[in-house]
Amino acid sequence: MRKIYLIGIGAGNPEYITIQAIKALNLVDVFFFVDKGDAKQELVDLRKEICDRYIENKSYRVVETSDPVRDPGIPDYKTRVEHWHRERALLYEQMISLELTEDQCGAFLVWGDPSLYDSTLRIIDQIVARSQVAFEYEVVPGITSVQALAARHKITLNGIGESICITTGRNLAAGLEQMERVVVMLDGNCVFRSLAGQEKDTEIFWGAYLGMQDEILVRGNLSDVSGEIEQKRTNARERKGWIMDTYMLSKPDRK
Amino acid sequence: MRKIYLIGIGAGNPEYITIQAIKALNLVDVFFFVDKGDAKQELVDLRKEICDRYIENKSYRVVETSDPVRDPGIPDYKTRVEHWHRERALLYEQMISLELTEDQCGAFLVWGDPSLYDSTLRIIDQIVARSQVAFEYEVVPGITSVQALAARHKITLNGIGESICITTGRNLAAGLEQMERVVVMLDGNCVFRSLAGQEKDTEIFWGAYLGMQDEILVRGNLSDVSGEIEQKRTNARERKGWIMDTYMLSKPDRK
Repeated sequence: MRKIYLIGIGAGNPEYITIQAIKALNLVDVFFFVDKGDAKQELVDLRKEICDRYIENKSYRVVETSDPVRDPGIPDYKTRVEHWHRERALLYEQMISLELTEDQCGAFLVWGDPSLYDSTLRIIDQIVARSQVAFEYEVVPGITSVQALAARHKITLNGIGESICITTGRNLAAGLEQMERVVVMLDGNCVFRSLAGQEKDTEIFWGAYLGMQDEILVRGNLSDVSGEIEQKRTNARERKGWIMDTYMLSKPDRK
Repeated sequence: MRKIYLIGIGAGNPEYITIQAIKALNLVDVFFFVDKGDAKQELVDLRKEICDRYIENKSYRVVETSDPVRDPGIPDYKTRVEHWHRERALLYEQMISLELTEDQCGAFLVWGDPSLYDSTLRIIDQIVARSQVAFEYEVVPGITSVQALAARHKITLNGIGESICITTGRNLAAGLEQMERVVVMLDGNCVFRSLAGQEKDTEIFWGAYLGMQDEILVRGNLSDVSGEIEQKRTNARERKGWIMDTYMLSKPDRK
């Protein structure tokens, strides 16, 4: 039977890869590289570097394709994302059935970990539910940008005996009301700025391109450094054409 | 100057280790193995197996010691833990200054990731603050049991665009009120049982000894399977003398 690996390749640093992931990479006949239609050539190159560096038998093939885009005509966020996932499921299903013979092994390489803010696993679930092509699949965890952030700032994610919330920019305000510490993984709009006035005692630990050569780290009182972070973020994004960043907000007396 | 590595060795499976961790392991002169005074010889053995398997130059030394125990005379949880951390800081400081020469490298191997529900980093921070022995230190992230749980159950931790809370058994009830999905890392008392009646629509994804040979996985409606989990947990703990388990609770319509 066909087999699909969803391999977490870690966040940025090629050395974040695990031995389990390397073993899986070496079993793969066909890698599916899905281009998100943006300027992140550097990220495609990093995937290729990982394959070059860690695969011993170079007989694998790479199939490159472009993801469908989200339909801006669908106003509700969740409906829009679900519609987009369905389109991707059809595309991925076609790749699995056309590019793999019945005894071959395919793989999707996922930044960070397939279980955290990545939709590949949801798409695989949809393909399984459709029952149009039979395959087994396995998930290989990887180091997330949340862990890279904590390691590079040398901080713990949780306070002693406390909880931690991992969320998006969209849900940040609600999360921070409920928890002492909130990690934000997807915030293209610098939502933390809007909290700088209200949350005077909050500290921020911010990082971009974590684990990579261009890594930028900023930490400090949220009110003091939110302008600096925004400026560095804008400059870096202009220079490189893309940015991936993550941050933790923490009430300082509970750290 | 002395250097200390805090190396996340992943949760259970020796193949969860990263290339970065293996490189760090190979730089270490002295490993500090701290025995928590319980029956987890198997966990000490797993640390030794990791050293044997991944270190090429076998000239390192291992220093074994026992952690001080928490003082049951201190009633408040946080005060008790802080007092315990201070005692451990004195012990670790002594090891760093006596067992390492000024140009040597020491390491603590941490289950999972040093940033999540592990106190080694907090203890290192205390030693730094005391300024009695000079050293640099670096944190190497590792795969957590949360990620192992998600990978083995093939689930995503977050719902689409939603938040995830990582917490302890103690804080579970509060977490579940606030979030759609809650991961519990430390719950020696099966707190999930007490929710089985109230939270009828909740699903549980449970795992013990994740990534190891004795791995046990159970998933299902919380009301239906909480008795089964408790039973399996009790049996396994009796058989092996220890248990490490983790679970996620999820409101099913938002998965």
